[in-house]
Amino acid sequence: MKRHSIKIPAIGTYLPVDRQLNSKKAEKFGYDSNFLNNKLGFTSVALKGKEETTLDMCVKAFENLKQKIELNVKDIQLITVISQNPTVNIPHTSAMLHNILELDKNCMTFDISQGCSGFCHAIQIVHSLMESLGYNNALIFTCDTYRDIIDENDHNVSMIFGDGGAVTLLSRDINQGYSLVDATFGTALGSYDCLICDNGLLKMDGRRVFNYAAQEVPKSIQLILERNEMSKEDINLYLLHQGSKFIVDSLTKILGVSPHKTEFSSSKYGNTVSSSIPILLSNHLGNHAKTNVILSGFGVGFTWGTCLLKHIKNEEE
Amino acid sequence: MKRHSIKIPAIGTYLPVDRQLNSKKAEKFGYDSNFLNNKLGFTSVALKGKEETTLDMCVKAFENLKQKIELNVKDIQLITVISQNPTVNIPHTSAMLHNILELDKNCMTFDISQGCSGFCHAIQIVHSLMESLGYNNALIFTCDTYRDIIDENDHNVSMIFGDGGAVTLLSRDINQGYSLVDATFGTALGSYDCLICDNGLLKMDGRRVFNYAAQEVPKSIQLILERNEMSKEDINLYLLHQGSKFIVDSLTKILGVSPHKTEFSSSKYGNTVSSSIPILLSNHLGNHAKTNVILSGFGVGFTWGTCLLKHIKNEEE
Repeated sequence: MKRHSIKIPAIGTYLPVDRQLNSKKAEKFGYDSNFLNNKLGFTSVALKGKEETTLDMCVKAFENLKQKIELNVKDIQLITVISQNPTVNIPHTSAMLHNILELDKNCMTFDISQGCSGFCHAIQIVHSLMESLGYNNALIFTCDTYRDIIDENDHNVSMIFGDGGAVTLLSRDINQGYSLVDATFGTALGSYDCLICDNGLLKMDGRRVFNYAAQEVPKSIQLILERNEMSKEDINLYLLHQGSKFIVDSLTKILGVSPHKTEFSSSKYGNTVSSSIPILLSNHLGNHAKTNVILSGFGVGFTWGTCLLKHIKNEEE
Repeated sequence: MKRHSIKIPAIGTYLPVDRQLNSKKAEKFGYDSNFLNNKLGFTSVALKGKEETTLDMCVKAFENLKQKIELNVKDIQLITVISQNPTVNIPHTSAMLHNILELDKNCMTFDISQGCSGFCHAIQIVHSLMESLGYNNALIFTCDTYRDIIDENDHNVSMIFGDGGAVTLLSRDINQGYSLVDATFGTALGSYDCLICDNGLLKMDGRRVFNYAAQEVPKSIQLILERNEMSKEDINLYLLHQGSKFIVDSLTKILGVSPHKTEFSSSKYGNTVSSSIPILLSNHLGNHAKTNVILSGFGVGFTWGTCLLKHIKNEEE
């Protein structure tokens, strides 16, 4: 393992405390409790305050990160915000964060427009830039405020998406954390309109989204395993995008891995889009971190991104 | 020079034929012809059709690229759209382009939110990804439809910005073109609101934008020259973002380089934001291409990006 390689040592998260309980909605839409608990899987979804923006939620995730790790903001050389719900379109949200967090002048700022596979895209993009430019520390913010673009009467979306944010530190300075080994990406043919927001309201064709995911995600994981000469048993943990309990369970079956190696942990706060995977990963950074982890994000586009991470412990100086 | 290095062999461009003449507006705002011709420098600006979107303009730039170079769309492994005026926020415009251009399933798609320094950011981002992932061909689309967000009565913006788009091919497969040698990026402190679009209208504090540019752009160019052990005379061409004639002339003076080494070529179509530099560069890809070229973009954020390119001719197999 390369000395001073780039690692993910800490992730800050923010989930609003307010929740929408889904039981009454399920009744209204004619869904039974089995559907709610075992198919959809979201008994409640997190709700941000009405005036709370992507920028505000990124700041709260950063405050959480600072509680987890000592951080000198002047050491941060790159920040990016992954969102399709920016606070304003001009400037990019990362430029606004740069001001609030009082970052250094030599800090690169840009945003990435990507959805549920955005975090996997961002890890690869930021990792590649850190290698090319010799950067030591970078932050990936993820935040999507889908509750702003949801028609509460649309049964396809109103019980699924929750508001949330996360900030992931990538660093060469810390001797423990997850390191990116490999990644693969793709975009399904003719799929752009399976998740679309026009005129301010999100429309989702859930069946198409499910079919694309069931078809492409297992193949992308197989590809990563093959080119790294690993078997599915070599992977200790598969963190799959929390689209619904049904999609996570279905992918677990198609992959043929033990249900103990995947997880659906978002039943109380919903599908947080670009933040769904970093929120999961934030719970696996402690002393009992698994060695080989696959992340797989999929959604808007329809796109997917699959990353292989390896945990590095107490790397020698 | 590394064999099969990544090069920019071709750039497609699109400028709408319709023009807004600025002479009457200058009169209305109380500007004389000296100000219009020699300070602002834009005698007219390009106007897209009212219904024409960022997506439409990207497609037209791509049609222009296909006239310039033979291209198998199935070889394209990554496309990104640099814009702060996306057609819709969900999905990203590159996913919609993926569908129209009938690209391959194994093509990565994401958009980048960045303004006038966006092209320099994108060259570095895409170059780094191509190196990490071993990709051979990628497209960088740039397009900003500022005329949609301009108050025609606002003298700070209504005579400056024009609509335009470009698509830049980065390829390992072609043995001639510009190759990225080095780049540097930054974000000025407390500067996020010098260019901002809230409630659908662009506001610009031109004096602040000018001051940030005059302060930071020459320093970033100096930094690139120093760490590549080059003098300003070693550079054959400086392509500076076309913010106005005044800013290009001022930077030329501050840099202390011959006016023959910089250019202001956008007097007939305006400041096309993220497309301003690729449109300039597209005119320098022929047989008489200069060897060492500096690109420097600056604006929204306030951010800057400076790239050093080297032209490679008929690289040996």
